[in-house]
Amino acid sequence: MNSDKKKGTCLQSEKNKTAHNLSSCFENVRSERPLVECITNYVTVNGCANLLLAAGASPVMADDIEGAVEFTRIADALVLNIGTLTPWVREAMKTSLAIAKERGIPGVLDPVGCGAAASHTRLSLELLESGVSIMRCNQSEAKALLGLNAAAHGVDAAMADQVSEANLGEACANVAELARRYGCVAAVTGAIDIAASPDGRVAVIRNGHPMMADITGSGCMLSALTGAFAAANPGHWFEAVVVMLAAYGAAGEIAQKNLLPGEGSGSFEMRLIDAFNLMNTKTLQEYADYEFI
Amino acid sequence: MNSDKKKGTCLQSEKNKTAHNLSSCFENVRSERPLVECITNYVTVNGCANLLLAAGASPVMADDIEGAVEFTRIADALVLNIGTLTPWVREAMKTSLAIAKERGIPGVLDPVGCGAAASHTRLSLELLESGVSIMRCNQSEAKALLGLNAAAHGVDAAMADQVSEANLGEACANVAELARRYGCVAAVTGAIDIAASPDGRVAVIRNGHPMMADITGSGCMLSALTGAFAAANPGHWFEAVVVMLAAYGAAGEIAQKNLLPGEGSGSFEMRLIDAFNLMNTKTLQEYADYEFI
Amino acid sequence: MNSDKKKGTCLQSEKNKTAHNLSSCFENVRSERPLVECITNYVTVNGCANLLLAAGASPVMADDIEGAVEFTRIADALVLNIGTLTPWVREAMKTSLAIAKERGIPGVLDPVGCGAAASHTRLSLELLESGVSIMRCNQSEAKALLGLNAAAHGVDAAMADQVSEANLGEACANVAELARRYGCVAAVTGAIDIAASPDGRVAVIRNGHPMMADITGSGCMLSALTGAFAAANPGHWFEAVVVMLAAYGAAGEIAQKNLLPGEGSGSFEMRLIDAFNLMNTKTLQEYADYEFI
Repeated sequence: MNSDKKKGTCLQSEKNKTAHNLSSCFENVRSERPLVECITNYVTVNGCANLLLAAGASPVMADDIEGAVEFTRIADALVLNIGTLTPWVREAMKTSLAIAKERGIPGVLDPVGCGAAASHTRLSLELLESGVSIMRCNQSEAKALLGLNAAAHGVDAAMADQVSEANLGEACANVAELARRYGCVAAVTGAIDIAASPDGRVAVIRNGHPMMADITGSGCMLSALTGAFAAANPGHWFEAVVVMLAAYGAAGEIAQKNLLPGEGSGSFEMRLIDAFNLMNTKTLQEYADYEFI
Repeated sequence: MNSDKKKGTCLQSEKNKTAHNLSSCFENVRSERPLVECITNYVTVNGCANLLLAAGASPVMADDIEGAVEFTRIADALVLNIGTLTPWVREAMKTSLAIAKERGIPGVLDPVGCGAAASHTRLSLELLESGVSIMRCNQSEAKALLGLNAAAHGVDAAMADQVSEANLGEACANVAELARRYGCVAAVTGAIDIAASPDGRVAVIRNGHPMMADITGSGCMLSALTGAFAAANPGHWFEAVVVMLAAYGAAGEIAQKNLLPGEGSGSFEMRLIDAFNLMNTKTLQEYADYEFI
Repeated sequence: MNSDKKKGTCLQSEKNKTAHNLSSCFENVRSERPLVECITNYVTVNGCANLLLAAGASPVMADDIEGAVEFTRIADALVLNIGTLTPWVREAMKTSLAIAKERGIPGVLDPVGCGAAASHTRLSLELLESGVSIMRCNQSEAKALLGLNAAAHGVDAAMADQVSEANLGEACANVAELARRYGCVAAVTGAIDIAASPDGRVAVIRNGHPMMADITGSGCMLSALTGAFAAANPGHWFEAVVVMLAAYGAAGEIAQKNLLPGEGSGSFEMRLIDAFNLMNTKTLQEYADYEFI
């Protein structure tokens, strides 16, 4: 995935122009140490908290209504991940999102399981319609939210929905439409990542490694991280998301390279967090492979 | 545990006869990529999802009634683990199990804490009586479900209940009785693993390593995996369970061998998942130590 | 943190006098294998269970009222961690704590988020007033429980609240006041750890490594461990807490030393559990750096 980088329609000059800002986006998380309140699923919550810490942010994962509201009032970002829906969590999500909007902090949505389970689709649409700042999801979830025929495999994207160089144009158009329709930055991740802003900008990010699909929570951790990058970069959410996708993908590539003989998916998660924890802007510049189209 | 393998009453010819089928059982999980819906405890849920992915399966861990029902309708197997019982989870388990039976997909039960806590025993019996396909538990839980005097140490098997070569005959008889009484494949694991089918077949599996008891969730992860192996091998649940027990035990042996100096139980969990992730049928054949008695 | 040890007002003779007892405190966890029932948060529950196992104890994490009550009736210690508060958990905590007191087993409180969220402060005070044996918290939480102006950063201690050699006297006075006011052993951890008994003894422990703040759950895991050390050392809770703080801090130092090139916070958690799992009294004596003041 990394050996034969294609820059596509990337204008090198444009890439260089934004390179400095993107490095700043990365550094700002460490200097600002944003407090990120996550209402998330019980499967991957530990990894989400650990990746936030590895990035230099500070996680809080209160999911009861009272606690979620209290922490959203002092947080720098709110992340809603609907992977597992306890009976009270819908209310906690809606109430906290209203507070986030009132306070002007970014509200991030990860519509896990959208398309696969009707209850997840309904809640996602309800949250999107009430207004989120950024949405991070996989290709099957993105298709479902556009009313297209998605082939989700449980909470994972289906093979049939994967983005490749062959269908990249159509996929970009879909992500741009998601961003426009729901008035949010949209980040749709998979073999190739795509980000779009509500005002029509689109970026393609070609970092990452297939082993990221072999661990649970690689998407959830990324959504939690989105809260940190958005909080640390007010007014530059789209750029922050692009650099985050490149950095997280780069961490995946480094993690795979760092695997020792006998190490597989179990060690990969640790090494992914390690790589993000040890990443600096020099490494990021070296690995980052994105283009604005 | 591995250095001095005893084949007991194993007929070498019989072992060879089934060797091919057992390799297929293992490979089928990777080729079928079954979707396994787990309603499980919040302690070990992450490891369960990660082991399923390491084995080639696809996990979903929805535990609210609505989500559990929706995912059971599209899943290839259902796994019920009663380790921690949130107020709504009993209902989610009963409703989902009924759907699993209606759809003909395997329903797996891990009766965690049975014998130690009356509420866990009651729920286990209720689920068993409504009909499960496969049960995976430890020796103390098995004894409790037979109405025998079990000496559980919390959710772990008590020393007094451990199976050894000395009491193996009695232990096998107990597992066979469990399978017969509840009309399910029964897998009872510990220092020596025993599996029995409702039609009277019994197998003894001598893979594994004592360090598997030093991490939380080694039993839970195995129960989750049971769903994947059963789903990928319709009509051959007993054989699938036997090969799974050998493969998982082999992964434990390999994980211990792969520990570096200074590594203990913390790294062991990662290396266990690594070993399962990297296992192939050649390694499995080399390590597998089971017999049909 | 370890390179330039300062013994402060430590009397070497006094330290030697207690050295033997403290080694026993450590060994007793392994020989007694206490059953520790934890009602804890869903973020770090897995690490809590794994550290208890690594220390030689046996964890149970039932958090529904029925299960929590049943396991508290057979447990050797009860640990209450209020990091995430599901709707039923307050009741489970209060009821289980009453049973722990009735049975004479230690009841440990970790008042996570106290000061940062009013609902966490209220519950902490309620539990403290009903009587806990030992409280383990960070400096911001400790200040909040004394009604002082705390600067908590979410569930983490604020920089402004960190203990240093410069403000150590005041910090010790605060911890002593906590122990006196709430009639419990108080352990307040951070860059320097402080423990105090309700009868006026105070100890300062200078083990640990800053990377312990880079993983989620380093405090939660320590609180869970407190239950094990208290249960294994009846009548010597204060001494048990001091040796535990030294041992856990030493494990942090060893974990950091054991990091391989390319390993960061992701691997650190595994190596922390590894180090505790492999620790013996010889290593503990070598690393331990505490004083009674």
